[in-house]
Amino acid sequence: MNILSIIEKKRDKKELTKQEIDYFITEYTKGTIEDYQAAALVMAIYLNGMTNQEITNLTLAMANSGDVLDLTKLGMVVDKHSTGGVGDKITLILMPIMAALGVPVAKMSGRGLGFTGGTVDKLEAIPGYQTNITIEQFMQNVKEIGISLISQTGNLALADKKLYALRDAIGCTNSIPLIASSIMSKKIAAGAHKILLDVTCGKGAFMKTKEEAEMLARVMKEIGNLAGKETICVITSMNEPLGYSIGNTLEVIEAIQALQGKMLPDVKEVVLHLGSIMLKLAQKGEDIEENKRKIEQCITSRLAYEKFLTLVEKQGGDSSFCKDINKFEKANYCISVEKQEEGYITQMEAEQLGKAACFLGAGRWKKEDKIDKTAGILLHHKVGEYVKREEKIATLYTNNKEVLEEAREMVQQAITIANMPVKKEKMILERI
Amino acid sequence: MNILSIIEKKRDKKELTKQEIDYFITEYTKGTIEDYQAAALVMAIYLNGMTNQEITNLTLAMANSGDVLDLTKLGMVVDKHSTGGVGDKITLILMPIMAALGVPVAKMSGRGLGFTGGTVDKLEAIPGYQTNITIEQFMQNVKEIGISLISQTGNLALADKKLYALRDAIGCTNSIPLIASSIMSKKIAAGAHKILLDVTCGKGAFMKTKEEAEMLARVMKEIGNLAGKETICVITSMNEPLGYSIGNTLEVIEAIQALQGKMLPDVKEVVLHLGSIMLKLAQKGEDIEENKRKIEQCITSRLAYEKFLTLVEKQGGDSSFCKDINKFEKANYCISVEKQEEGYITQMEAEQLGKAACFLGAGRWKKEDKIDKTAGILLHHKVGEYVKREEKIATLYTNNKEVLEEAREMVQQAITIANMPVKKEKMILERI
Repeated sequence: MNILSIIEKKRDKKELTKQEIDYFITEYTKGTIEDYQAAALVMAIYLNGMTNQEITNLTLAMANSGDVLDLTKLGMVVDKHSTGGVGDKITLILMPIMAALGVPVAKMSGRGLGFTGGTVDKLEAIPGYQTNITIEQFMQNVKEIGISLISQTGNLALADKKLYALRDAIGCTNSIPLIASSIMSKKIAAGAHKILLDVTCGKGAFMKTKEEAEMLARVMKEIGNLAGKETICVITSMNEPLGYSIGNTLEVIEAIQALQGKMLPDVKEVVLHLGSIMLKLAQKGEDIEENKRKIEQCITSRLAYEKFLTLVEKQGGDSSFCKDINKFEKANYCISVEKQEEGYITQMEAEQLGKAACFLGAGRWKKEDKIDKTAGILLHHKVGEYVKREEKIATLYTNNKEVLEEAREMVQQAITIANMPVKKEKMILERI
Repeated sequence: MNILSIIEKKRDKKELTKQEIDYFITEYTKGTIEDYQAAALVMAIYLNGMTNQEITNLTLAMANSGDVLDLTKLGMVVDKHSTGGVGDKITLILMPIMAALGVPVAKMSGRGLGFTGGTVDKLEAIPGYQTNITIEQFMQNVKEIGISLISQTGNLALADKKLYALRDAIGCTNSIPLIASSIMSKKIAAGAHKILLDVTCGKGAFMKTKEEAEMLARVMKEIGNLAGKETICVITSMNEPLGYSIGNTLEVIEAIQALQGKMLPDVKEVVLHLGSIMLKLAQKGEDIEENKRKIEQCITSRLAYEKFLTLVEKQGGDSSFCKDINKFEKANYCISVEKQEEGYITQMEAEQLGKAACFLGAGRWKKEDKIDKTAGILLHHKVGEYVKREEKIATLYTNNKEVLEEAREMVQQAITIANMPVKKEKMILERI
């Protein structure tokens, strides 16, 4: 077997065998296949696609290219993953709820890149919170308090790490076979027994149309099932940012407030829907509506909030910040954004707002970039609401004075006002 | 400008601008664009194609990526190039004829790779012949004796050298935009004023069908014309090997015999046709038929043969080998190939025979491989001829005893015998 014939096969739109895919992943991880050969193959995959069988084989090969965790001792672990969005703080809210309801939560998350945020960056906005603990400590925490949220270890799905960096450098990130295998290889290696995937769809997601999101969802569900891990995908809308905040400290504060019972309707819709399915997957309740009630009660009773505080303390964080959100450090500069027109907000373009937040310092364009935890955007209104002329619609936060004006311009342009109200979109578009 | 947006543009089937192509070639030659990014772009070009305007811009950028020779002082130089074949010794025969007829010949050639041979390897089969002389000496030789045949200097079309090696390593050699720009960039940089291209077509050529060959020919003609160099393409048949011999010493001997007047009909047809067009391009005669007569006379009078001897001596070669071909070193092992059937030869598959010759030691699979000058195949019959049962059809030569039997098997399989004769193909298929 040699890499040249594998490249030529995919170049000619032929299906690669399991042996060929295994060979590619093993040798590429080892470094005996050169980056330029992998780049040619990746571009051929991008342009010629892959069958579901090929994608599954690629996923399994990548999952096995590093450590594979065994979580069986923890009980029925259900993982939850979002394909990325703007203002998406669902994990921070949902996972403590699950833990409070007796579902073991052993979850590894990623960092933000480009216009999308990442759970690890958000957790690190809590002073002292350690996302880089050992696997042993991670497992121990789950055993003791039922939950641990950490960053993905360096040894999981090694091939994915290499391939992801390569895809980023050659314009091949946005490919369904490559996205699906990247996500699922990490989920499989991370050891959960069942997987719930939140496939975001719309202007602030990687999948811009419902068709694309459905395609990605179907592929990932099939991979999960072929790998013996029951997988459910929920397609959620991501046209405007989720909730009010974009940026790490701002989103942590919104999550804390949500766990205290103050949750925006769009956030609540997603939390209840995803949570009720997770409970079912975890065999904690068959009836979806009943599950939703359990979740609401878990919030009202403050059990989820208490679990969150326990989690923060267990991970070395200072929970006093969570008890008094005014303690969080604030950005040095903040300005408000208004529109000249009066009327209904018809659009708050998530990708544009995500990019503006990144520009303010909340995100990174390249992996190596440093982030400003305090930077971001706080919205005061959502799509569908009526605003007066020059009413404050959003507040921008940053420690970099120079970007303020340009960011304000970006945010103004991302918001559209019209005379007629628009119909508010449903958040949950489909379940696959 | 950045390489990522260029890759994405071609990935999305959009046309690259001259500026984008220039940027890619300049930065790739310098090394600031990585091989893996170039590999992704090359695969996208392979799969999504290029417009003629893009191919021309790519060619000119590559031609200007290294030295560009100025041959104006030598008069009207017409270059001749073949896209590669099996047993193709036309350059060795045709160029001395042209020089004898007053057309200045300043030609750089390449080495063989895979199943096709290269003129430089053949010239080096003549003891002492130097293919690596300085450009000054090259120009001086043309001034003094009207001809010099050498290998391409290392500084011509630097980007092509890098890209060619990359294409070879990622399965992207066989792409019309990439083949056309590779050939034409070298021709333009080599400084000839007009260009005659022998586009081979058939089982022993890179272009397997007439349609592909026509497409390549049209693209190269347009590039040449846009670059201000009149270009004519002749499509020639390459289903069976050209002439009787495959392999370096064997082909030199056949070329010498041809210059002495013993030329097989297929070789003669190509020599006369290409030569008559070259004379016209060089403004040495408008009438094609009259030009053919001039060439025949130039052979009969031994002027072309004498010119060849002068060339060999001028390049440091020992012309006594050319005067007495028995002096050439012979391979240690030779065996004959027969078929069990009696009948007409209907096929002698050029690619298979080229591979068998390579296997015997006459060619190289990789650039670094050493070749055995004495190795190769001598055919005793051509397609259309009648052979008796177990009559000798070919003789194989090698210094590597171990490959003899397998090579014999390969050659036997490449030859087909039938009861009915086949119509002999024309060698010249089209002129573009």
